[in-house]
Amino acid sequence: MINSTPSTLRPSYVEPGKDFDRDTNYIEDRITRDGRDGWPVEPGRYRLVAARACPWANRTAIVRRLLGLERVISLGLPGPTHDKNSWTFDLDPNGVDPVLGIERIQDAYFARFPDYPRGITVPAIVDVPTGKLVTNNYPQITLDFETEWVDYHRPGAPDLYPVALRREIDEVAELIFHDVNNGVYKCGFAGSQKSYERAYDTLFARLDWLEERLANQRYLVGDTITEADIRLFTTLARFDAVYHGHFKCNRNKLSEMPVLWAYARDLFQTPGFGDTIDFDQIKKHYYVTHVDINPTGIVPKGPDASVWLTAHGRESLGGRPFGDGTPPEAPLESERVPAI
Amino acid sequence: MINSTPSTLRPSYVEPGKDFDRDTNYIEDRITRDGRDGWPVEPGRYRLVAARACPWANRTAIVRRLLGLERVISLGLPGPTHDKNSWTFDLDPNGVDPVLGIERIQDAYFARFPDYPRGITVPAIVDVPTGKLVTNNYPQITLDFETEWVDYHRPGAPDLYPVALRREIDEVAELIFHDVNNGVYKCGFAGSQKSYERAYDTLFARLDWLEERLANQRYLVGDTITEADIRLFTTLARFDAVYHGHFKCNRNKLSEMPVLWAYARDLFQTPGFGDTIDFDQIKKHYYVTHVDINPTGIVPKGPDASVWLTAHGRESLGGRPFGDGTPPEAPLESERVPAI
Repeated sequence: MINSTPSTLRPSYVEPGKDFDRDTNYIEDRITRDGRDGWPVEPGRYRLVAARACPWANRTAIVRRLLGLERVISLGLPGPTHDKNSWTFDLDPNGVDPVLGIERIQDAYFARFPDYPRGITVPAIVDVPTGKLVTNNYPQITLDFETEWVDYHRPGAPDLYPVALRREIDEVAELIFHDVNNGVYKCGFAGSQKSYERAYDTLFARLDWLEERLANQRYLVGDTITEADIRLFTTLARFDAVYHGHFKCNRNKLSEMPVLWAYARDLFQTPGFGDTIDFDQIKKHYYVTHVDINPTGIVPKGPDASVWLTAHGRESLGGRPFGDGTPPEAPLESERVPAI
Repeated sequence: MINSTPSTLRPSYVEPGKDFDRDTNYIEDRITRDGRDGWPVEPGRYRLVAARACPWANRTAIVRRLLGLERVISLGLPGPTHDKNSWTFDLDPNGVDPVLGIERIQDAYFARFPDYPRGITVPAIVDVPTGKLVTNNYPQITLDFETEWVDYHRPGAPDLYPVALRREIDEVAELIFHDVNNGVYKCGFAGSQKSYERAYDTLFARLDWLEERLANQRYLVGDTITEADIRLFTTLARFDAVYHGHFKCNRNKLSEMPVLWAYARDLFQTPGFGDTIDFDQIKKHYYVTHVDINPTGIVPKGPDASVWLTAHGRESLGGRPFGDGTPPEAPLESERVPAI
């Protein structure tokens, strides 16, 4: 189930002269109700490993919160920085994940595929009994949380992927992936001025498009929070903290785009979103890990994150954040992020 | 007249573990009316070499404009980027300064001191007949333009260093030098997290102090433009374009500090200020030259510079920009910067 093209773990991120090219081949096993890949839905069996710093992992942490899957899928939290051997459990006592008993998430990859040749990434789901990695295919992980784990959703869980809207959600999410989610990386890891400028133009053209789309509707698709909003949010949450400076996405700060900035704060202040964001870990991750674009490893002190808590005024657009459902309860004590 | 402590020309700017320590020893010869250092004031004799990119050189270009010294002191313009042998005349035909006939400003330094051991810097004033460097002591250069070249000031030239206000101008300029002009470099070239954070705190505390000082008075000292305003302006003009991202001075953009932003735009829109600013050269200089903090050499496309032309509203504070004088005429055709 993995593509066998060899790929080394690079300590560098920029290839001179080239566009940034994300390897989008993942371990594509799925955890399903029918267990057709050998991994049936089963409460308590799997551990989601999702560093706070990572925007792709952040999606899974938000969906898990919104659906109340905390009680059935536990959460491992690697620290913000890592070396070329990727994410470590350095925040845990003795640097060992208390459930998996490993120091690095790569150990779970190698337990499954001893010669795993691709990038060691989060989010990753591990089968706790065997310690083997099940999947790191993040776009599918959240969809499966939403559609395969329904029997374990909390009472009042929202429908984040409504059948009638799936096509539109997929279309919007696809545009946002290429131009925004991955677009900021194409700016930051561009190997040439031309490559950077092309990515920058595409990114801001898409942000302008979003600014317009969201001017009169509270959420991206329909009138409730969906998977599309979650995918956009995790990039917006990092925009001013890291992408604006570190990745040179500096036509303007997010806070200078009135509609998107209000939209992002609206989500941030919604239970399940802002309570998964750790700005210190986010900044440390990008500025310390990407040694080839920030060789000094110095982490900027700004910007002030408290502006995320200011009034956004989006309620006046209507919308029903959780549809017929309700907001999630407070995060588990052990999973609280520092207050901003 | 030069301190003999050896100093190498570094291709790197950051010394790990250390604070940034600017070498403030310069060739301190002065061009005076009495010619006591061997360099008498004499129209047409000297050439000011002042790269558009450099904030210290920018001061001299502004003062020369405001006082109308263009007719008596010519201007050499090195390009924005340079290697470890410092500034070159790469924008000139065949890469040679048309008056001095040299490719690099270091040639004028070596004509004066064959073993010149310190940094090759701009602004620099060269004696055209001999091709020898006279001085690179930038804080004195502008003061001498103001006080020693008075016989050659244009009609209506302002008094930028009024006798009654010199003490206050000097005091304010000293605070601004350490905390702001050089403060941004202390952030950007800090060799440790602690050193960076100390410089960042000092910088923004001083900007807050300036925000308050300028809330009810149009200019820094007295009610007219003085040397103090010029010294602050050249750093503010570069703030959002380079210091905010490249030097990690990112508590906020200048454009997020209402008073300072209006003050900076007021000056920018005053003849003699904005017409010396070339944002493309500024961005290229910092992002290409400082290879140890931006190894990719990619130059950010943002931010949009046209905001410098927006209304600032500072006229309502009163003030007399040129005192009893008048604004300068348009720049010489050969010295025009690109429109923003």
